[in-house]
Amino acid sequence: MGKKNSYVEHLTPRSENFSRWYTDVVRQAQLADYAPVRGCIVIRPYGYAIWEAIQSELDRRFKATGVENAYFPLLIPESIFAKEAEHIEGFAPEVPWVTEAGGEKLAERLGIRPSSETIIGTMFARWIQSYRDLPQLINQWCSVMRWEKATYPFLRTSEFLWQEGHTCHRNEKEARIRAEMMIEVYREFIEDVLAIPVAVGEKSESEKFAGAVDTYTVEALMADGRALQAGTSHYLGDGFAGVLGIDFLDEDGHLKSVHQTSWGVSHRLIGGLIMVHGDDRGLVLPPAVAPWQVVIVPIYRDETRARVLESASALQDELGDFRIHLDDREAYTPGWKFNEWEMRGVPVRLEIGPRDLDNDQVMVVRRDTGDKEPVTRAKLETKLQELMEEIQDNLHRRALEFKKENTHTVSSLEEMKEIMTGTRGFAIAGWCGDPECETAVKEQTGATIRCLPFKEYTYGTGGCLGCSKEDAPRVIFARAY
Amino acid sequence: MGKKNSYVEHLTPRSENFSRWYTDVVRQAQLADYAPVRGCIVIRPYGYAIWEAIQSELDRRFKATGVENAYFPLLIPESIFAKEAEHIEGFAPEVPWVTEAGGEKLAERLGIRPSSETIIGTMFARWIQSYRDLPQLINQWCSVMRWEKATYPFLRTSEFLWQEGHTCHRNEKEARIRAEMMIEVYREFIEDVLAIPVAVGEKSESEKFAGAVDTYTVEALMADGRALQAGTSHYLGDGFAGVLGIDFLDEDGHLKSVHQTSWGVSHRLIGGLIMVHGDDRGLVLPPAVAPWQVVIVPIYRDETRARVLESASALQDELGDFRIHLDDREAYTPGWKFNEWEMRGVPVRLEIGPRDLDNDQVMVVRRDTGDKEPVTRAKLETKLQELMEEIQDNLHRRALEFKKENTHTVSSLEEMKEIMTGTRGFAIAGWCGDPECETAVKEQTGATIRCLPFKEYTYGTGGCLGCSKEDAPRVIFARAY
Repeated sequence: MGKKNSYVEHLTPRSENFSRWYTDVVRQAQLADYAPVRGCIVIRPYGYAIWEAIQSELDRRFKATGVENAYFPLLIPESIFAKEAEHIEGFAPEVPWVTEAGGEKLAERLGIRPSSETIIGTMFARWIQSYRDLPQLINQWCSVMRWEKATYPFLRTSEFLWQEGHTCHRNEKEARIRAEMMIEVYREFIEDVLAIPVAVGEKSESEKFAGAVDTYTVEALMADGRALQAGTSHYLGDGFAGVLGIDFLDEDGHLKSVHQTSWGVSHRLIGGLIMVHGDDRGLVLPPAVAPWQVVIVPIYRDETRARVLESASALQDELGDFRIHLDDREAYTPGWKFNEWEMRGVPVRLEIGPRDLDNDQVMVVRRDTGDKEPVTRAKLETKLQELMEEIQDNLHRRALEFKKENTHTVSSLEEMKEIMTGTRGFAIAGWCGDPECETAVKEQTGATIRCLPFKEYTYGTGGCLGCSKEDAPRVIFARAY
Repeated sequence: MGKKNSYVEHLTPRSENFSRWYTDVVRQAQLADYAPVRGCIVIRPYGYAIWEAIQSELDRRFKATGVENAYFPLLIPESIFAKEAEHIEGFAPEVPWVTEAGGEKLAERLGIRPSSETIIGTMFARWIQSYRDLPQLINQWCSVMRWEKATYPFLRTSEFLWQEGHTCHRNEKEARIRAEMMIEVYREFIEDVLAIPVAVGEKSESEKFAGAVDTYTVEALMADGRALQAGTSHYLGDGFAGVLGIDFLDEDGHLKSVHQTSWGVSHRLIGGLIMVHGDDRGLVLPPAVAPWQVVIVPIYRDETRARVLESASALQDELGDFRIHLDDREAYTPGWKFNEWEMRGVPVRLEIGPRDLDNDQVMVVRRDTGDKEPVTRAKLETKLQELMEEIQDNLHRRALEFKKENTHTVSSLEEMKEIMTGTRGFAIAGWCGDPECETAVKEQTGATIRCLPFKEYTYGTGGCLGCSKEDAPRVIFARAY
C-alpha cells in the first residue's frame, strides 16, 4: 500500500514551472486533452462535469432575472456579420469561414460565430415591433470559435464553450441597469460558487468588446500573479440596433432604436479554478462545483474485503445527499487512489478499513489542508456538511489573502517593471485616460489595464504612470492571460 | 372579452393542409422561426424550453446507465473524417467545409461534424490501452450539420440540436447489449414522457447508418399517417476501431479491437410532439415536457382588478410545485389569452374572476378535451395533480388508438399503393430480404421499410410484396419524414 505512484511523481511542482504544472494538472486530472484539430481541446467527462455544475448554477441565476434560453444558428452569412463595422473589424481575423457545402462552392462565405450579436440582432429586428415586445432577455449556451495560433487548455482555444446573453431595452437607462446587473451576477457567482475573489470595473477603450459602448469586467488574480478576465458584460448602445434595424413604436408614438446589452462567461472559468486553488499535489475544487464532493477509499486485505466493501457501500447510500463516489476498483492500491483523488481535487476523502469498522468510525481527510481525523459514523453526515462549508470558505479566504498580498500600489514605471518581472499581481496606479499612456505602460512593463474599478481606490500616490499628470484616477494594471 | 382573435383565425386547420398547419403552429406558438441562413432555424425560448425538458429527462436516464457527458471539437479534419470509407461516403455530400480561417487558406479542409464517430474514435484510441479502460460510455449534447436543400422546422434543417452517445466495449456481446439498452431507453422515454407510442426494430441494409453493422430504430406515426424516425442506436462492430486503431490489451494478453455503439435523438422529437398531439387549435403538450403545465388567466373589470390579481398571484404561489404561469398582461383580453395558451398547448388553464372569488373556486379547463369545471380552492392542488396524470395518459391513449387504427396488414403492391395515396399509416407486409424488392416497393408506392420489428408480427397473409416469395418475414412499411 505504498503511497509512491506515477501520478505525483510526474506532476511538475507548481513553484517550479507554473505553466507546465497547469497543463500537467489539466491532462492528469483528466479535465481535457488536446484534440487533433488546431487550437482545439476535448473536454473530458471530469472537466465537463465541472462545466455542468457551472452551467446549472449560472442558468438558475439568469432565469431568476427573467432571462430565457434559445438557440441561434452556428453560421453567420458574411453580409450580416459585416453590418456593424467595429464588430467585424475586431472579429474577422479570427473567424473560420465555410466556403463549400452540399458539394458546391457557396455564393457567400458563412462565418462560424465568434459571438452572435449580428445573427441574434437580425432576429430581434423581426420579433420587436412595439414597446410591448420589450425587454427581450435571451441567453444561449453554445460553442463559438476564434482562431488561435497557440493552444492553452481552457484559456486560449480556437473553439470554446460559453454562454452569451443578449437583451433589448426601451432606453439607455434600462439597458445599463441590465449590463450592470449581469456583471454583478457574475461577480456573486464567481466569488460564492467558485470561491474566487474578483475586481469589478470598466474596461478602457482599447480593451472593450468590438462594437460596445462600455464593457464591464470581472478580473481574477491567478496564483502566478497574472490576471484572468473571468466574465464581461457590455452596454452596446443602439449601434447594432441602428445597422440591423431593431426599432420599435414606443408608447409616445415615436419609432425608436432599442438599446442592447450582451454578456458572457466561458469555460476559461475552469482554468481559473485550477490556477487559483490548485497546489503541488494537483487540483483543489470548491465543494460547490466538485463533480464528486466526497470519495470513499476502502482499505482491506483478502480476508476483510467483503466486510469492508459492504460497509463502504452502505456508507455511500447513507450519504446520498452529497455527490459521493465509492472507488472500489480492484486493480489499484489505496495509496494510488489517495493520490489520484488528491490530484483530481475531491474536497473530502473517507478512508474505511477493518479497524475503522471495529471502532464504528471513518477516517476523514480534507484536500485543502490535508487534515485527517477519525469521525464516528453517527456524526459523519453533520461533519461532512460542516466541512463542505468550511472548505468552500477556506478556499475563498486563502484566495482573498493572496489577492490582498499581491495587490500593490505603484507610482512609477520603474516600480511597475520590477513588480511585473517579479511576483506580478494587481498593480494600482494612476492613469490620465490617454491611450498613449496606456500603450507606453504596456510596452515597457507588459501590463495592461484590467479595469477602471467600480470601487474607487483612493490610496497610492503619484500621477499618471505614462505622463505623470497629477490626480489621475487609479486603475488596475496586470499582466493577463 | 370576445373570443375571436387573430390567433385562431390565422391557423390553417390541420385537416385542410397538414403541412401548412404544422408550420403555422411552429411559428405562431413561437417554437421556432426561419433563420437568414439556408436550411437553418432559430429555436425560440418556448421551443427551447421543451428541448430543455427533453434533455433533462434523457440525461438523467443516460447517467443512470453509467454514461458521462463530454465535449469534442465541432470541426473534423478531412483526413480523419475519411478514414472509414462507408461513413464518409454516406455523409460527405452533406458536410459544410471550412477552408479559410485566421485570414489564411487552410492546408486541409475541416468539416463541420455531421456525427462524431471519427473524431471521438480518434480520442478513444488515445485513452484506451487495457481492458481496464473499458467500457467507455460517453455522450455529447451539441449541434451538428447536414446540408439540406429544403427546410422543414425541427424535421429537416441544415443544423440541428441532438445528443450523440458513443461507447467502446471488450466484445461484440457487450456492445450489442448497450445498443439494445439505448434503443429501449429511447422507447421508454418517448412513450412515457412524450406520450408517443412507437414501433421498435431493426433497419434494413439500405436504411442503416453509414458505417454501422446494425441500426435499431424507434418509429412513430404522425397524425397525417407518415412515419417519423424518432431515435436510432447503432451497433458499429469493430470497423471504426480497426481504421482508427482503437485497440486494447485484453486480460488474456491479446491485443484486440474494441466493439462500439453510437446512438442519438435530435430536436426532431419536438416536431413529433406537434404532429402527434396537435389539433385545429394548435399545439397540445404532454404535462411531462410542457414549459408551463398550468396558466392562470385573471378576468376582471377596473373595479375588480386589484382583488382578482391579488388572488391570482396568491394562487400562483400556492401552486409552486407545478410549472405555473400567471398571465397578467394588461394589453390583452382574457379571450385573446385563452386562445394564445391553447395555441401554445398548455395542458391546464385556470380562469379566475370576481364570481369565482365569491364562491372560493377556480374554473379549470383542460387543453386535451376542452372540459371545463369549477373546482374549490381547497381541492385544487389535488385536482391538478390528477389532471397532469390524466392528460399525460389520455394523450398517450389517443395516440395509441390512432396508431392501431392506422396500422394495416397489406398483401399486395396494389393494396399498398391505395393505402399510401390515401390515409397512409404503418403497413405490415412480407419482405424476403432482397434490396431489389425493397426498391420496387419504394418506387411504386413511396413507402420505405421503417423497421424489421423486434416484436414479431405473425398476422397478415401473402408473401414478399416485391417477388411474392412465400413465408417472408413481416416488416413495417410507411411513407416517412
